[in-house]
Amino acid sequence: MALTVPDWLQQRARTTPERLALLDGDRPWTFAELDQQVESAARLLAGRGLGTGQRIGLLAPNSAAYVIAVHAVSRLGAVLVPLNVRLTPAERDWQTADAELALLLDADACAELASAPPVEPASVLRTIDLDAPHSIIYTSGTTGRPKGAILTYGNHWWSAVASALNLGLAPTDRWLACLPLFHVGGLAILLRSTIYGIAVHVQPRFDAQAANGAIEAGASIVSVVSTMLDRMLAERGERPYPASLRCLLLGGGPAPRPLLERARAAHAPVVQTYGLTETASQVATLAPEDALSKLGSAGKPLMGTQLRIAPDGEICVFGPTVSPGYLHQPPREGWLHTGDLGTLDDDGFLYVLDRRTDLIVSGGENVYPAEVEATLLAHPAVADAGVFGVPDPEWGASVAAAVVLAPGAHVDAETLAAFCRQRLAGYKVPRRIVFRPSLPRNAAGKLPRHALGLEADAVQETCITEADAAQ
Amino acid sequence: MALTVPDWLQQRARTTPERLALLDGDRPWTFAELDQQVESAARLLAGRGLGTGQRIGLLAPNSAAYVIAVHAVSRLGAVLVPLNVRLTPAERDWQTADAELALLLDADACAELASAPPVEPASVLRTIDLDAPHSIIYTSGTTGRPKGAILTYGNHWWSAVASALNLGLAPTDRWLACLPLFHVGGLAILLRSTIYGIAVHVQPRFDAQAANGAIEAGASIVSVVSTMLDRMLAERGERPYPASLRCLLLGGGPAPRPLLERARAAHAPVVQTYGLTETASQVATLAPEDALSKLGSAGKPLMGTQLRIAPDGEICVFGPTVSPGYLHQPPREGWLHTGDLGTLDDDGFLYVLDRRTDLIVSGGENVYPAEVEATLLAHPAVADAGVFGVPDPEWGASVAAAVVLAPGAHVDAETLAAFCRQRLAGYKVPRRIVFRPSLPRNAAGKLPRHALGLEADAVQETCITEADAAQ
Repeated sequence: MALTVPDWLQQRARTTPERLALLDGDRPWTFAELDQQVESAARLLAGRGLGTGQRIGLLAPNSAAYVIAVHAVSRLGAVLVPLNVRLTPAERDWQTADAELALLLDADACAELASAPPVEPASVLRTIDLDAPHSIIYTSGTTGRPKGAILTYGNHWWSAVASALNLGLAPTDRWLACLPLFHVGGLAILLRSTIYGIAVHVQPRFDAQAANGAIEAGASIVSVVSTMLDRMLAERGERPYPASLRCLLLGGGPAPRPLLERARAAHAPVVQTYGLTETASQVATLAPEDALSKLGSAGKPLMGTQLRIAPDGEICVFGPTVSPGYLHQPPREGWLHTGDLGTLDDDGFLYVLDRRTDLIVSGGENVYPAEVEATLLAHPAVADAGVFGVPDPEWGASVAAAVVLAPGAHVDAETLAAFCRQRLAGYKVPRRIVFRPSLPRNAAGKLPRHALGLEADAVQETCITEADAAQ
Repeated sequence: MALTVPDWLQQRARTTPERLALLDGDRPWTFAELDQQVESAARLLAGRGLGTGQRIGLLAPNSAAYVIAVHAVSRLGAVLVPLNVRLTPAERDWQTADAELALLLDADACAELASAPPVEPASVLRTIDLDAPHSIIYTSGTTGRPKGAILTYGNHWWSAVASALNLGLAPTDRWLACLPLFHVGGLAILLRSTIYGIAVHVQPRFDAQAANGAIEAGASIVSVVSTMLDRMLAERGERPYPASLRCLLLGGGPAPRPLLERARAAHAPVVQTYGLTETASQVATLAPEDALSKLGSAGKPLMGTQLRIAPDGEICVFGPTVSPGYLHQPPREGWLHTGDLGTLDDDGFLYVLDRRTDLIVSGGENVYPAEVEATLLAHPAVADAGVFGVPDPEWGASVAAAVVLAPGAHVDAETLAAFCRQRLAGYKVPRRIVFRPSLPRNAAGKLPRHALGLEADAVQETCITEADAAQ
């Protein structure tokens, strides 16, 4: 089987040049226009010596310029490394060094690419090798340090195709991207819409009114997390959504059942999905016809993907969307062990019970307790620390920590939170810190973080940092 | 990139078990029912010692049993060899021997598979290797003998996906298969509908009234060739087609412009396509939005496929749908030279001028002059023969032959036609035979068959065999 195919965007520019490819504010871009600007941007970068195999970081807010940068990096044959704009300078520096970036594109650099004039031919790619890496996306693990998950063109292609085989596809579809484009869920929209030949509507940040406005203006599919859906339903009030909205794709962790009930009452066509950075987004998605009868389920695996539950309840995944491995680590083989817990009902529907056992999903952002614990332990007054999620009606979960002070040491919760805030993105900073004489480590020295969470309510609340709630 | 994926039908039976998969007459099959019967059929064959890598021929009319046989062969890991039911016994024997069939399934054998009871576990496959051969489809060439084109699972997968990325996909789609399932255009419908999770409506043979009836009953896409479309429009008369019919996919050679104009007038949503056995069906297809403005064009290459016109006008194709080669021949590399002639207009739209230079497409069936010439030359009275197409208002083209008799030999056209009829499928038998003192071979000894055609009208018509017109 030939694994080399034409550049997706370029093929779309040739086959469907006049279709709407991108909408940013009131500025529409056809596939022909987008392709032409991407070509100019890629040539500008090629002229500066950038090319195949190099890694190019991208640190900018959602915009048409961001989209152009994504495609331009690809057309160079370079590997895209999207960085989370909410990282602290220290976190960003660490990822930049780890990825050995040849260039870091910030918002200004993206704007330059988006207005680059046509130039004489430079060396840019015309075809795509599906086995080549397209992007490296950092995702934290249980070890405390983020890891760069490698995603190939083939991973993204299969993900896009399998999504269409489940949700269907109309040439008139328009996908609203109001979640961050640096997350896999956002990036996947950009690649998918190109492969499909449909428009992506990019918004600079999530705003419930703006998102609902985009739906009124014709967006047919919207990717959301629970917090966003909650606000959109609240903003919308009693008005039903237009029939042109055919799918609210809800990811980012198990959705609260009351939210799903509200969505159902509002005739919002919510389709739950379970996805991972390491699988180029969706693993399982509820088929439209099961959306109501299997409320709360993440559905069944997409075409091409296999899913099984290990004896200990861990969700395991195999298929062509699964990343070949992490940067600086040996290639992954066989099944991907997600660390997430789930069950299958008698009809084969997946129910995700908990993300990565200890993962805290707060407003759609993943917080890995080990990373926050490592930060707390870096403070000289801290002898031990356990980080866990606390249910939060607005964010799904918020970050909490149980801290054991070193003998004779004194520090207050505000000081520890400020210490974290200097080193961690705001959404990772504990909003609640409790002091304990010891932590209930098991015989292997492992911390049962869930036990911490269960006991948390019984402990006096010591610190809530409102500033960190500005997600 | 992992190239092993779950068995398509089985995954559909798991993810969308209650959806309609197959309709044969009034008998509906859900994906769960179809999968279960295919499982029983595969186990029955496995119990008889058939399995991976073996080749199994299929010689039966369109039916649900045919569909079950197709999937059962696949589940065994065997390679499907669909044979044209219109071949003579001699032609069939030749292909059967060439393919080294382990088994030939006829209509009775298919019926047995379709009613096979569930049996205890036998060795059947659960996954698909996309690089493995799925089928071998015989296609004649310029050499006179048919060649078995190998099509992998990956070829079929990419073909199905690329078609959906062009035409769109709705979970409620239903594809009408009223053309022979042994042709690539029919077989592709079966695989595509499985991958999409939509229903295929199988009819035993083409009947304009039955086809129009299936559209009334909900078929949304219909694969047709010009002759079929012509009859359907005639049968339909003035009544507009229902809005549920969203695509009449018109293949099988360049369509006469008057037919396209009639279709346009009747609001029949015709989408022209250009396809080959060697590319698992569609290569280029007109996008829906261009159907009217580019009437007569076969559109642009599907996603993943590259297309170029060689300096001599030959259409060349490269991409993941292209067959890895022919049976008993070394693997094909690089671009596929189709032998067909075409041009690209300034907007990049393909216009197919002529199929394989000398190919005669009669009622959707391909007739290769070299094969008919070889048969004529086998008659002792024939010294030389040239076969060519003559425009035919009903069939698109009909087969004609110019024959040079051996010195002193005598034979009449009826006798020669009867001689052919014993050795060739009816649609290949010349309906018109003219006798000539010599043929205009060029310096290289090559016969400019088009020149024969141009002169044909000036020559007295010697024989028209009406029996052969019963296509």
